[in-house]
Amino acid sequence: MHAYRSHTCGDLTAANAGDTVRLSGWVHRVRDHGGVLFVDLRDHYGMTQVLADSDSPAFAAMERLRAETVIRIDGRVKLRDASLVNPRLPTGEIEVYATALDVLGPAEDLPLPVFGEQDYPEETRLAYRFLDLRRETLHNNIMLRSHVIRSLRNRMWDQGFTEFQTPIITASSPEGARDFLVPSRLHPGKFYALPQAPQQFKQLIMVAGFDKYFQIAPCFRDEDPRADRSPTDFYQLDLEMSFVDQEDVFSVIQPVIQGLFEEFGGGRPVQSDWPRISYAESMLKYGSDKPDLRNPIEMQVVSDHFRGSGFAIFARLLEQDGTEIRAIPAPGGGSRKFADRMNAFAQAQGLPGMGYIFWRKGDSGDTEAAGPIAKNIGPERTEAIRLQLGLGEGDAAFFLGGKPETFEAVAGRARNEIGRELGLTDENQFRFAWIVDFPMYEKDDEGRIDFSHNPFSMPQGGMEALEGDPLKVLGYQYDLACNGYELVSGAIRNHKPEIMFKAFELAGYSEAEVEKRFGGMVKAFRYGAPPHGGCAAGIDRIVMLLADEQNIREVIMFPMNQRAEDLMMGAPSEPTNEQLRELRLRVLPKE
Amino acid sequence: MHAYRSHTCGDLTAANAGDTVRLSGWVHRVRDHGGVLFVDLRDHYGMTQVLADSDSPAFAAMERLRAETVIRIDGRVKLRDASLVNPRLPTGEIEVYATALDVLGPAEDLPLPVFGEQDYPEETRLAYRFLDLRRETLHNNIMLRSHVIRSLRNRMWDQGFTEFQTPIITASSPEGARDFLVPSRLHPGKFYALPQAPQQFKQLIMVAGFDKYFQIAPCFRDEDPRADRSPTDFYQLDLEMSFVDQEDVFSVIQPVIQGLFEEFGGGRPVQSDWPRISYAESMLKYGSDKPDLRNPIEMQVVSDHFRGSGFAIFARLLEQDGTEIRAIPAPGGGSRKFADRMNAFAQAQGLPGMGYIFWRKGDSGDTEAAGPIAKNIGPERTEAIRLQLGLGEGDAAFFLGGKPETFEAVAGRARNEIGRELGLTDENQFRFAWIVDFPMYEKDDEGRIDFSHNPFSMPQGGMEALEGDPLKVLGYQYDLACNGYELVSGAIRNHKPEIMFKAFELAGYSEAEVEKRFGGMVKAFRYGAPPHGGCAAGIDRIVMLLADEQNIREVIMFPMNQRAEDLMMGAPSEPTNEQLRELRLRVLPKE
Repeated sequence: MHAYRSHTCGDLTAANAGDTVRLSGWVHRVRDHGGVLFVDLRDHYGMTQVLADSDSPAFAAMERLRAETVIRIDGRVKLRDASLVNPRLPTGEIEVYATALDVLGPAEDLPLPVFGEQDYPEETRLAYRFLDLRRETLHNNIMLRSHVIRSLRNRMWDQGFTEFQTPIITASSPEGARDFLVPSRLHPGKFYALPQAPQQFKQLIMVAGFDKYFQIAPCFRDEDPRADRSPTDFYQLDLEMSFVDQEDVFSVIQPVIQGLFEEFGGGRPVQSDWPRISYAESMLKYGSDKPDLRNPIEMQVVSDHFRGSGFAIFARLLEQDGTEIRAIPAPGGGSRKFADRMNAFAQAQGLPGMGYIFWRKGDSGDTEAAGPIAKNIGPERTEAIRLQLGLGEGDAAFFLGGKPETFEAVAGRARNEIGRELGLTDENQFRFAWIVDFPMYEKDDEGRIDFSHNPFSMPQGGMEALEGDPLKVLGYQYDLACNGYELVSGAIRNHKPEIMFKAFELAGYSEAEVEKRFGGMVKAFRYGAPPHGGCAAGIDRIVMLLADEQNIREVIMFPMNQRAEDLMMGAPSEPTNEQLRELRLRVLPKE
Repeated sequence: MHAYRSHTCGDLTAANAGDTVRLSGWVHRVRDHGGVLFVDLRDHYGMTQVLADSDSPAFAAMERLRAETVIRIDGRVKLRDASLVNPRLPTGEIEVYATALDVLGPAEDLPLPVFGEQDYPEETRLAYRFLDLRRETLHNNIMLRSHVIRSLRNRMWDQGFTEFQTPIITASSPEGARDFLVPSRLHPGKFYALPQAPQQFKQLIMVAGFDKYFQIAPCFRDEDPRADRSPTDFYQLDLEMSFVDQEDVFSVIQPVIQGLFEEFGGGRPVQSDWPRISYAESMLKYGSDKPDLRNPIEMQVVSDHFRGSGFAIFARLLEQDGTEIRAIPAPGGGSRKFADRMNAFAQAQGLPGMGYIFWRKGDSGDTEAAGPIAKNIGPERTEAIRLQLGLGEGDAAFFLGGKPETFEAVAGRARNEIGRELGLTDENQFRFAWIVDFPMYEKDDEGRIDFSHNPFSMPQGGMEALEGDPLKVLGYQYDLACNGYELVSGAIRNHKPEIMFKAFELAGYSEAEVEKRFGGMVKAFRYGAPPHGGCAAGIDRIVMLLADEQNIREVIMFPMNQRAEDLMMGAPSEPTNEQLRELRLRVLPKE
């Protein structure tokens, strides 16, 4: 017989009754039923009930077992009494009467119990991650992640893509976030960097003629702590294709993502018709460039109804350039209590408040509009608003005004809140949309023109477009929104050096600066670069959506804590003097 | 029609004759056949012959094309004349008459030609890697690597393993080589390290109960330059299993590796019976723990024939403890010329020389032994040696003596040389063997006991074995040798803290030191650790063997040069002052 097991703890069924077996696993739980001891023996594959009574040579050893000890037992498979069958366990029809028991790996008192999965502080869970990972929920999440990545790979191969690894120890590539640096010992004083993304490499792979690349790529960013992201690294499905336009990229990635969500979404409906929504339309209707389309609410511009109206705040606002009044319809939200709650929500988000109208049954039995705005603008304008928004008795509308950029984000969050509060958002589904036509440039806080997203995107209209107003230039740049998250982001790239230099010039970068920052790629573009484009999909986020988890550390095997420390392995730590000497580095004292 | 192509450059066959098509690709070569221009248009998928005569609107543009320009052509598919069919090309039956041509990506004068694949200095090839990668040989190697990795993954999944990513930014883990350090910004003065291998993590995954893990794992070592290795990182197929002994690991990995070599070995025979050879036997017979078994030569101990003989050097040597005389049989090497060449080889390798006997047809017509040793030891001993080694007329034997560790390595190299020179080694095959029973400890240069390989291996005989002579302790440790290379290395791990502390104590490490170095893992072993073991296979080496390449940079997409520089991206480079300030680091001046 095998040294450790004839079967796993998930294998045995009624068909094995009478067999002599050997099992190894962890002691999940011990129960003493007055002279008969029961052990739930657990391994990766399942759980098997093992028992011994005082006639068994294993009894004495079993009495001393602590939870999470690793044991091996020999025994005989018995059918359980019909009344004791556990239909939730694949092994629930049988139990194993133990005749021998060996401790393979003893366990001390546990700092974190496995059985029961009680809530425990995250720091304890991370310091004893090897115990935490034995818990069913986390164990399943990590298995899910692995299967998701495998499925992504197979789907990409099936689409004719080839996976290539790009360097992890490489050059600093300023793409917005902070690099992790790696000091060079052979070249003291010089540093490598870990890649923020394989952006330049994947474009070089296209220039090298490989046509269709993908990679499950680790990306490294030295981020400031934030609850919902890893402070050091994340994984993306990175892909790039040559000789394509935007729709080619969409038609490759949609079946991959849709198929993945159908495979692992636990039966939640996955929409198959993915609309294209321009950035401008998305910001207007949803107050976000990653709209949650499970929520049917669409905002509308209602400026005309307020222009010159008796609602002085909005009327005066509209006299300024670039201002607008937008309405968030709230079907079913027609009560003062709800309207006041949403107004308070807007205030909590930093706005002065959200005006509202709601429609209720009046004393006369007719529908009447209520709320301060309705009073101020009068019944005609109020009715025009109601008609435009398609609302009626029992509904409400909320209003935000000013320059859109000052209130859009709050409007988007209010839309989410309203949809959720009113039960309009059917959360049990996955809804996707391509957000397209992103502006290439925006004004930064100091009024300077800067790239709004990826500087490597091809401007729509090419060189000509760059001769006009930069703020009007749209890029061949796109995101995939799903349930309020950005799952994928990509672009058709700018593969022409002259357009690239011009695009950077508009954002204030000299040709020399571009050569210095992206020299490798710009050089490559001079020797026969194909038109190309691609995208990257956030794997951690995808797994979080599929596992229905809010915390990224629930879908990573060995995550850092929020302070970027590995509490189990003790990282980061003090280097030795010898290491610093070899790198010719000195750590400066705290200022 | 699609913006860039209706077909790839590998698609069109006689069945497309008459079709109107659009192709995009690189100008591989332009030929001018007096008024008719031919362009070999290349993409990732193949090559298509495109032509234009002066009647074509594309003619003028085609005249100006430089090699490696990216173009798009529209045209009509024509059958080639029977005499012009190229049977080596899938598209060799057709050509495309171009009616329109657009330049998508111009090319300047090439620093490195693609067509023809002339030899170029490696530094140029690395600086223009995007051009180098367009060359057929390298392009194919990189594709091979990707397919090899895909196949490895599928084979591991098929064996019931699950892939998990382990952290890349982690703790320093002193495993023999030098760590790459990553300074922490959030914890200035502290450093992360890039993993030399996921050794501790994979063992923690077993303790966490996952049973069968694998990973295509990047490993990072700050190595001094050497021609045949990457100075920064390499990839391995890393795997680990719970509840297994050594043979379980073998039976998992053999089908993976054997199947891989059968799939990608280009039809070279792949041996299916993999012998187990102990380390001691391997060193004796082959002078190496990674023997090339394509070479049939096996060395033998012949000390007895020299004890008290007239060959004084060996006779006196044998009076010292621990000495031996070993013979390398050389069937077919029976000439003074060959024997002298091998003697010179040994001298070039730093030995005083290699004694020899060779057997030739004597003047009388009988077989006679020749060479100084035969003269000194006389015909009886000479004949006894001949009989032991199974040699005859036309053969030779070479002799090395002393303490085995002083000559074993040279003996191994001489064995290789003899096998090659005499044509005994059939190079056109893959021959495997498991090398087992490695000693746990060895004496270092200063006579201290140290681990000879992996300190995490379980000693054969467990705690009891550690009570005796450390130099006699064997580990459950194994390597897979293939054609003279170590392809795989692994062990059954020591999962018991008390045996681990004892094993380290023998090598001079205190319990505190072990806790400090491997604290995460040792802690985990206290809470229910399963017996486990695994191995790692070097992917770069496997691809080199399959591609029949000697230089690791021929099987990596974007390799560093030997000085650990990325000449294309410009790494490593000077950090900015801002970066150093954030990390609280100062670079010290050169001493």
